[in-house]
Amino acid sequence: MSYDRVCLIGLGLIAGSIALAAKRRGLAGTIVGTARTAETRATALRIGLVDEVFDTPAEAVAGADLVILCVPVGAMGVVAAEIGPHLAPGAVVSDVGSVKQAVIDAVAPHLPDHTVFIPAHPLAGTEHSGPEAGFATLFENRFCLLTPQGASAAETDRYRAFWEGMGALVEEMDAEHHDRVLAVTSHIPHLIAYTMVGVADDLRRVTNSEVIKYSAAGFRDFTRIAASDPTMWRDVFLHNEDATLEILGRFTEELFTLQRAIRKGDGKALFDHFTRTRAIRRGILDAGQDTDAPDFGRARKAE
Amino acid sequence: MSYDRVCLIGLGLIAGSIALAAKRRGLAGTIVGTARTAETRATALRIGLVDEVFDTPAEAVAGADLVILCVPVGAMGVVAAEIGPHLAPGAVVSDVGSVKQAVIDAVAPHLPDHTVFIPAHPLAGTEHSGPEAGFATLFENRFCLLTPQGASAAETDRYRAFWEGMGALVEEMDAEHHDRVLAVTSHIPHLIAYTMVGVADDLRRVTNSEVIKYSAAGFRDFTRIAASDPTMWRDVFLHNEDATLEILGRFTEELFTLQRAIRKGDGKALFDHFTRTRAIRRGILDAGQDTDAPDFGRARKAE
Repeated sequence: MSYDRVCLIGLGLIAGSIALAAKRRGLAGTIVGTARTAETRATALRIGLVDEVFDTPAEAVAGADLVILCVPVGAMGVVAAEIGPHLAPGAVVSDVGSVKQAVIDAVAPHLPDHTVFIPAHPLAGTEHSGPEAGFATLFENRFCLLTPQGASAAETDRYRAFWEGMGALVEEMDAEHHDRVLAVTSHIPHLIAYTMVGVADDLRRVTNSEVIKYSAAGFRDFTRIAASDPTMWRDVFLHNEDATLEILGRFTEELFTLQRAIRKGDGKALFDHFTRTRAIRRGILDAGQDTDAPDFGRARKAE
Repeated sequence: MSYDRVCLIGLGLIAGSIALAAKRRGLAGTIVGTARTAETRATALRIGLVDEVFDTPAEAVAGADLVILCVPVGAMGVVAAEIGPHLAPGAVVSDVGSVKQAVIDAVAPHLPDHTVFIPAHPLAGTEHSGPEAGFATLFENRFCLLTPQGASAAETDRYRAFWEGMGALVEEMDAEHHDRVLAVTSHIPHLIAYTMVGVADDLRRVTNSEVIKYSAAGFRDFTRIAASDPTMWRDVFLHNEDATLEILGRFTEELFTLQRAIRKGDGKALFDHFTRTRAIRRGILDAGQDTDAPDFGRARKAE
């Protein structure tokens, strides 16, 4: 159920974590990789993320039976075009992009018929990026969503086992639905967090140091996700435009309703809305997706 | 530096935590209280939050040298009118409201000249409410903002020592500035979180169970603050209308700029914005106001 030679294209947080997890769990014979900059390639080799690095994707994929594209969504098509002619017969090609339909549209045309395409999206990350940000437990108890493109059940199951071996909870769904679910649960929350942090940064009458000092009152919870990798998020929004704009429209509509209630002093409308939103939080706790400890169980000393 | 008889009006999360912390640190001789419902009064007495409960605020404040109003912001004026004639000479009156100017406007006119008014706002809370939600360490290393209304330095220092005794970091600022700082760091983030959770709850094509299941991808961080006490937050928005609407206007402006960049495919604008917001997160970590552990150091098992 493992792969002989795994090739990682792009060596950031996610690729680094795959390398460490796959090695620790014995899921890969050899792990090789490549990255855009010589510095990243050197770092990955130095800290032992990969057994071998190559200067180009074309060289890196030679002989690999699993190739995972770990580059920003906007770079997937270019990389696919580059590796297409060099892929081994029977190779499984996957990716870790946060958007699926746009990646499929960009990558699939470049893959030869003798390969198998199984797009994937591990719902895992931290605010850190780069090869040294990876860690072996990143995927434990985290969902990994597969959107198989006509891969056989046997190939899909084999790739599923690779992720399960790294501790992930694997689910399958179609690409369009994936993009809509993630727009709600991830893309729009990130956009809003980026917006809120930007507003705080812009104010004149309230200083940055005050915003930072008193951030525990609510603002702080927005800043972690607004510190994620800018390139990754630029590409997510550029490549999930339709779902993002749809959910954003609903968000604005709802925000204006609350704004109007504040302006009109409509306490009942505010109270009813705030009561309704409490229920969904309860659902998240009941589903074991968060802790109800104060501050999510943040260590007291860190505050 | 302590008070002989502390009276808490309203016995929810904050009052309960004050009672437990003051008792543990020996900051109060006797702690008495009152609450609107007989059930809350009975619970507070049963679990030992207070030494004695009274049916009405007027009875409760008799002989107290410190009275803290721990009711929603919208109820402060009514309570102040009720207790005014019964306050002991020299009594310090304070509150724990999240808005300060509106509380001062509502409370000050009812307080006799022989009392001292020192409004306060502890920046602490959890998503739970009610007398049983209180705990003695809630204020440790948390800010408590005082907006003294002409109290002498000696009286202010004595009350400051009470909060410092409970572990809080005490700062003074004027009420109007407080309301603006909190609009940015707390009120608008809460409003936005409530909005986002409401949007997720409304969707038809993405199910609630999917939103909950995949919430760790970003959405989850919004839900904790959107689960706070609805009455408290209704009153915050109704009583900090000006600052809230001002910051909300800036937020909408910024959100529309990002929305336009997505629609136009302007990757540079998105990248520049996302890069800028990263710096403020770094500031929060450097100031020791959060941890950079993945998921804020949430326990893995809880995910």
